[in-house]
Amino acid sequence: MLLKEKPVVVSRSTLKRLPLYLHLLEVLLAQGVEHVSCTQIAKEFDFDPTQVRKDLEVTGEVGTARIGFRVAGLVDSIKEFLGWNNAHDAFLVGAGNLGKALLGYHDFEKYGLNIVAAFDKDPRKVGSRIFGKEVLPLNKLPNLAKRMHIHIGIVTVPAEHAQSALDLMVGAGIMAIWNFAPAPLRIPSGVILENARLTQSLAVLTNNLIRHSNQGETYANRDVPKI
Amino acid sequence: MLLKEKPVVVSRSTLKRLPLYLHLLEVLLAQGVEHVSCTQIAKEFDFDPTQVRKDLEVTGEVGTARIGFRVAGLVDSIKEFLGWNNAHDAFLVGAGNLGKALLGYHDFEKYGLNIVAAFDKDPRKVGSRIFGKEVLPLNKLPNLAKRMHIHIGIVTVPAEHAQSALDLMVGAGIMAIWNFAPAPLRIPSGVILENARLTQSLAVLTNNLIRHSNQGETYANRDVPKI
Repeated sequence: MLLKEKPVVVSRSTLKRLPLYLHLLEVLLAQGVEHVSCTQIAKEFDFDPTQVRKDLEVTGEVGTARIGFRVAGLVDSIKEFLGWNNAHDAFLVGAGNLGKALLGYHDFEKYGLNIVAAFDKDPRKVGSRIFGKEVLPLNKLPNLAKRMHIHIGIVTVPAEHAQSALDLMVGAGIMAIWNFAPAPLRIPSGVILENARLTQSLAVLTNNLIRHSNQGETYANRDVPKI
Repeated sequence: MLLKEKPVVVSRSTLKRLPLYLHLLEVLLAQGVEHVSCTQIAKEFDFDPTQVRKDLEVTGEVGTARIGFRVAGLVDSIKEFLGWNNAHDAFLVGAGNLGKALLGYHDFEKYGLNIVAAFDKDPRKVGSRIFGKEVLPLNKLPNLAKRMHIHIGIVTVPAEHAQSALDLMVGAGIMAIWNFAPAPLRIPSGVILENARLTQSLAVLTNNLIRHSNQGETYANRDVPKI
């Protein structure tokens, strides 16, 4: 008899806490720590130990009573669970300032993200290289994405072009879109969309800052030293 | 008699939708559109018109029946509300890959963020310039932050150094911290902390992608064309 594996339903909050645990565990691993308990992890983050235990359950790792988890095993399992143990090839559309910044951020490779090439409609950008990655014309994307089995598409075009960039990538068989444009995008069912909204995070910060500043404090005239 | 202004309590969700509206309005403005209604804005985003109306109320702008809002007025009011009409000087701590990427992302200036200088503990980085911004030693931060009345501190150090970078900036009077490190940080009351967690957003994307891929599809052997 074949038993169907129960699909693991994982909350977004758990998914977002796993990278936090992973970073802590990697530090512990580098320090030569061999075992760690949920209580110890929870203490580092001011989290509830029960929550940590529940989060880590999704990785399939099992801790030992009074000893805890093997740090090395937990690191591997979280990476595997997040898909960070294998490289996912990605295309980036929009070689403007943000696109350039992402192309230059080599640490993505640690998280299984390998940006293979950039695409732009601007003929002045096409043909150039940014941090070693070639900038290609948009019309080459569909064919190349299929031939290279590209999994992830990164959208760094201005908001008003984001939907057409997404449509182009989805039409080329790209199933997961990481969107940096401040635009809400429509996707067909089966396609994965994740928004990484820097400007929205910044909006929360600067609005809080000005409301805070308006609550009384007046700033002295600034003298700006040369630095 | 003095009337105290009622403090506007704004939800995080509203704050995160305002940049979306702003980008749309700027496109409309560039196209010469003079007026826009909540219904039209809602339609663009598949939002509920009542929600759009409520979101826009916080800016203090008042629309006219059957005509809607003046686009130019609404652009200005949202910018003012978010604090994007004035530059906030910021220091960045951690001139690694992510720090470099952010220093090179000039569009931040559109959002009122002006990164003045970077700080790093690595003597090999100190003294260099990244996209024209000087990299200074950490011990210069407290004095300079006070003299220059720096409002925002950006944390781009590795997770294990994030708390000490934050403490250094808060000790120097910086009241708003934008944290890019995958670490939960403790802040004293009165200090504003906003986390911009790229790795966590990526975790959601890649985990969804591998679960999706495991649902049956097998990939053919890849042939990688030279591009």
